[in-house]
Amino acid sequence: MYLTQGLHRSLQQRPNDIAVRFQGKGLTFAEYGERVARLAGALRALGVGAGERVAMYSLNSARYLEYFLAVPWAGAVLNPVNTRWSTAEVLYSFDDSETVVMIVDDTFKEAGAKVAAASRSLRHVIYAGDGDTPQGMLNYETLIAEHAPVEDAYRQGDDLAGVFYTGGTTGFPKGVMLSHVNLLWSASSSLMVGLGGDARYLHAMPMFHLADYACFVALTVSGGRHVVIPGVDLEAILRLISEERITDIMLAPTIIHMLLGWMDQHPDETAAFDLSSLKMLTYGASPMTPGLMARLRDVFPAISFMQAYGMTELSPVATQLLPQQHTQAFVENRRISSVGRAAPTVEVRIVDPEGREMPRGTPGEIAVRGPNVMLGYWNKPEATAEAIRNGWMHTGDGGYMDDEGYIFLVDRLKDMIISGGENVYSAEVENALSSHPAIAQSAVIGIPDEKWGEAVHAIIVLKPGQTTTLESVQAHCRERIAGYKCPRSIEFRESLPLSGVGKVLKYQLREEFRKKSG
Amino acid sequence: MYLTQGLHRSLQQRPNDIAVRFQGKGLTFAEYGERVARLAGALRALGVGAGERVAMYSLNSARYLEYFLAVPWAGAVLNPVNTRWSTAEVLYSFDDSETVVMIVDDTFKEAGAKVAAASRSLRHVIYAGDGDTPQGMLNYETLIAEHAPVEDAYRQGDDLAGVFYTGGTTGFPKGVMLSHVNLLWSASSSLMVGLGGDARYLHAMPMFHLADYACFVALTVSGGRHVVIPGVDLEAILRLISEERITDIMLAPTIIHMLLGWMDQHPDETAAFDLSSLKMLTYGASPMTPGLMARLRDVFPAISFMQAYGMTELSPVATQLLPQQHTQAFVENRRISSVGRAAPTVEVRIVDPEGREMPRGTPGEIAVRGPNVMLGYWNKPEATAEAIRNGWMHTGDGGYMDDEGYIFLVDRLKDMIISGGENVYSAEVENALSSHPAIAQSAVIGIPDEKWGEAVHAIIVLKPGQTTTLESVQAHCRERIAGYKCPRSIEFRESLPLSGVGKVLKYQLREEFRKKSG
Repeated sequence: MYLTQGLHRSLQQRPNDIAVRFQGKGLTFAEYGERVARLAGALRALGVGAGERVAMYSLNSARYLEYFLAVPWAGAVLNPVNTRWSTAEVLYSFDDSETVVMIVDDTFKEAGAKVAAASRSLRHVIYAGDGDTPQGMLNYETLIAEHAPVEDAYRQGDDLAGVFYTGGTTGFPKGVMLSHVNLLWSASSSLMVGLGGDARYLHAMPMFHLADYACFVALTVSGGRHVVIPGVDLEAILRLISEERITDIMLAPTIIHMLLGWMDQHPDETAAFDLSSLKMLTYGASPMTPGLMARLRDVFPAISFMQAYGMTELSPVATQLLPQQHTQAFVENRRISSVGRAAPTVEVRIVDPEGREMPRGTPGEIAVRGPNVMLGYWNKPEATAEAIRNGWMHTGDGGYMDDEGYIFLVDRLKDMIISGGENVYSAEVENALSSHPAIAQSAVIGIPDEKWGEAVHAIIVLKPGQTTTLESVQAHCRERIAGYKCPRSIEFRESLPLSGVGKVLKYQLREEFRKKSG
Repeated sequence: MYLTQGLHRSLQQRPNDIAVRFQGKGLTFAEYGERVARLAGALRALGVGAGERVAMYSLNSARYLEYFLAVPWAGAVLNPVNTRWSTAEVLYSFDDSETVVMIVDDTFKEAGAKVAAASRSLRHVIYAGDGDTPQGMLNYETLIAEHAPVEDAYRQGDDLAGVFYTGGTTGFPKGVMLSHVNLLWSASSSLMVGLGGDARYLHAMPMFHLADYACFVALTVSGGRHVVIPGVDLEAILRLISEERITDIMLAPTIIHMLLGWMDQHPDETAAFDLSSLKMLTYGASPMTPGLMARLRDVFPAISFMQAYGMTELSPVATQLLPQQHTQAFVENRRISSVGRAAPTVEVRIVDPEGREMPRGTPGEIAVRGPNVMLGYWNKPEATAEAIRNGWMHTGDGGYMDDEGYIFLVDRLKDMIISGGENVYSAEVENALSSHPAIAQSAVIGIPDEKWGEAVHAIIVLKPGQTTTLESVQAHCRERIAGYKCPRSIEFRESLPLSGVGKVLKYQLREEFRKKSG
């Protein structure tokens, strides 16, 4: 199996069907395939060798879809950049993975130039924007025009397909190595529910995220149509559902809430949209409430719901709460609050620290085995060995399983905060805080937030005689980590509660915060 | 990936759901799993080693379903016996594959005993019947009762899962080696269309056939329910659809015709059945006609159609004509007569003898590439190298592809006759005829037959001064090959039309027969 197989099949079966719609323009599969094979030719001509890493630093675009297939077609490996990261984080991921080529768009050409200037590994920067090509960069369209299509390298099977960087707990991201087989088996779980050849999927969430990329993989297998929005834009989501007859979409819970909020504020515009085509909304990170389902069914009359839980290391799907499990019965038995059950190609267990399975109803760590488990962390054999033991990926997520296999998340063993659908590891924020001149010690927790699900909150112990402000702390962090990882609120304490072995008792801090907030 | 993974998932998610229904009795997944793990324990206790072959010589039964999973659970390899074969053919397949254990039912205990007496490889015979255990055999239920459940051997991935014998062109069958990955990828294509966790599938066709076994694999992945009929029984098919609320079924075209015929003859019984649950009929081997679809829709109001084309060597799915492709538009554009397009996990090409792709509309040989292509033929490296070239399985079937990838079969390059849904290779029948004392030379062709699709017809050149009869020819063949492979009609000629290099011109013989029959 290989990621480009679906493109070959679509070229055979539907060359004149529309593959991609972006900013009012369409590309047929024949045109898409031609551009992919030419871009692959350009990458090879630039000296990109088998298995070398090629990054994309860009908002969503039709060119992003070309990048996704041209890289394996050329025999190379993907490294899609998290656009919310700081330059330091992007640079780290490039030099860590020895990325040799970066493609940048107009939005990230300056940030990209900074990274390129500092990177030890980058050999070429390709400008995939629509203005003048910046000094020292190659032009994307010129490369496509000047290079003949090459034959597919047929990179496949257990070959590395991409290095997908994910927020690390140790202050720097880890590169998750996923193979072609990893990604295609994970996609098969989605294809058993939706995203078939008749689907029209709206890429409304960032494409660098594995959640959206997994939908891209499934759609490539089935030959469905991609419709693309550059970035999250509430009005554009609704307009494109209406105009492009979108059938499938994936949205973070925060965006779902914001979307309904926008509709409340714009009743006339909303009434003008035809939202009857939307058949499937895939979501994750937090459960659907009965009220939310009712509101969405009111707005999208044909809608079904699918919850997926997983992580980059699982390519990413581990469990699914299926459309037929979003009923009143599932509200009453509370399984609507679960993350569903093991997907059709994986096994899930709740285990104790020694890897022994826990009895049903007893919390432990969620462990997953299957063809979707990553090859490992790039250049981190020890972290890999710690995560994957006896073939089981230890997710670090705490949960319990009921008597029919439904899994409920009870804690975040790795101390992760989910803010606006993004994972924030406390340790990373604490790491950034530790270099602030006034801060002696800190503990970062997630606190409930109406808009973001959770918000990053820092409890700070000052150095003797020092003071600081939220503004100063945020400014300090913003230089070191992505904006969404920076604390939104802080509090000061004399000391932090510690366990016998000197570990900060986060649980206690969360409890105290909850009591304080009533 | 491994074949027993789905059982583990069902044991976790639905232990108390009914997994199997057979002869009025049900087995929950917990009971099914327990019996599988005990039978696996018995096989290991009998000395069955990792990768050794275990045969099942039986009509369809609940025990057949246990065999399918206990063998991989024990770490061994399947060899399901074609029950229509002669003793000589079964014996050949056992000794060729070095099968060490055979399970027989009441129907095949005598034939099995004959094979066991002559086999060089068999070490044990297990009697899975309901009468007294024959001399020299072990009792299936006693083995299950006396052996504790063992842990799954987790045989997986590219490991050999089964040796599936298929009629050969050289007089003896060939063992097709399929891996766990082969079978599971092929099943994923079916799972994108049906056979989900809510399915109730009726095993109405023989389970030894890969067509039915592939449905078993898909259903095991999803956790759907198996309902079993011992052998083809028209009244039982309809009764069980009604009583068991069957949703999915696979039927050979001959059986579909016979079923409708039975209903015509039994209007009162038919009217008493509730046939509203049947959602999907999978078929193959010959196309659906508009009249047949209309009749079936009349009888089964919720029915959809799915055509699959493939072969044992392809685990078995290569192409699919999907439910949404069984419309009036597909009747009008004649694509209803195609075998559909490449399934979602495979690639199909039409090639010339040098492997070069033919232009659309030009006939050539159908070649298939994907994770479903067999590991090879057992002990036949040369035949394997001839069949699989550059990763492409050369099917031997002739066909052409239209401009949207639909494939039309135009000939059978390997000279195969399809009679009652069974493949009959002319060469095999000619081989049997060659030892008849009166026959100098023969050529076997398929001739149109209302009931069987095609019937086996032999054109015979007698030895000087000799005569023979249809009865004598049939009796001679029946000792050597399966009954359905024996000629149903014969004709005598002075000589056979030969090509320049001495090959019998079958095409000419078929033409002459057609003209003669008007």
